[in-house]
Amino acid sequence: MSTILDPAIASQLKRDADGLVAAIAQQHDTGEVLMLAWMNDEALALTLATGQATYWSRSRGQLWRKGETSSNTQRVLSVRLDCDGDALLLSVEQSGPACHTGNDSCFDAAQFLPATVRGDNA
Amino acid sequence: MSTILDPAIASQLKRDADGLVAAIAQQHDTGEVLMLAWMNDEALALTLATGQATYWSRSRGQLWRKGETSSNTQRVLSVRLDCDGDALLLSVEQSGPACHTGNDSCFDAAQFLPATVRGDNA
Repeated sequence: MSTILDPAIASQLKRDADGLVAAIAQQHDTGEVLMLAWMNDEALALTLATGQATYWSRSRGQLWRKGETSSNTQRVLSVRLDCDGDALLLSVEQSGPACHTGNDSCFDAAQFLPATVRGDNA
Repeated sequence: MSTILDPAIASQLKRDADGLVAAIAQQHDTGEVLMLAWMNDEALALTLATGQATYWSRSRGQLWRKGETSSNTQRVLSVRLDCDGDALLLSVEQSGPACHTGNDSCFDAAQFLPATVRGDNA
């Protein structure tokens, strides 16, 4: 299994000071945004080689195959790169909840509404 | 117009070393992920006060109201926070293309397919 990223892909990435790019996981059929995580070159290489989303855990400082302990894996259908090369969008098929809290999406911690939506400015 | 973020919101954010959180913009009706940008407290406060997406430009080192030069604004319907407080998901109504390249989404620079999808492992 290749852990070396294809140089043709690597050359397109604009990594941060820690060698990482942001990676957004989106459920392929519903369009739900599940989570934001991070990838280094090896994580992206493993993701593309295995078809299973693999990230770099900034808190643990190690590679992390999504679902390796929870079994809530992400099968990856495609990876798209953004215009400035520092973010990826993964189209995935999520097994079970994406979030360690048990929620389908990690974006369920809080919701803030603009004043225009709340009607404060009406 | 308030540029001070509500302390009840500010206390929930886990900012990076530069005081920023990631912000994903998603078109509210199609589910298309448009772009990934960054917000400091003031950008989020302005976004919530005006209902217009305002980011922090890391390259220019200044606040940046989306569309202020291009007129391709983003009306914000809601802002959701993720489980560890370092990423936001904006539900937006995008006017015109989101990307400075003229594409609807910034995630149109390149697409990479896993070996499992390409059929290399079939």
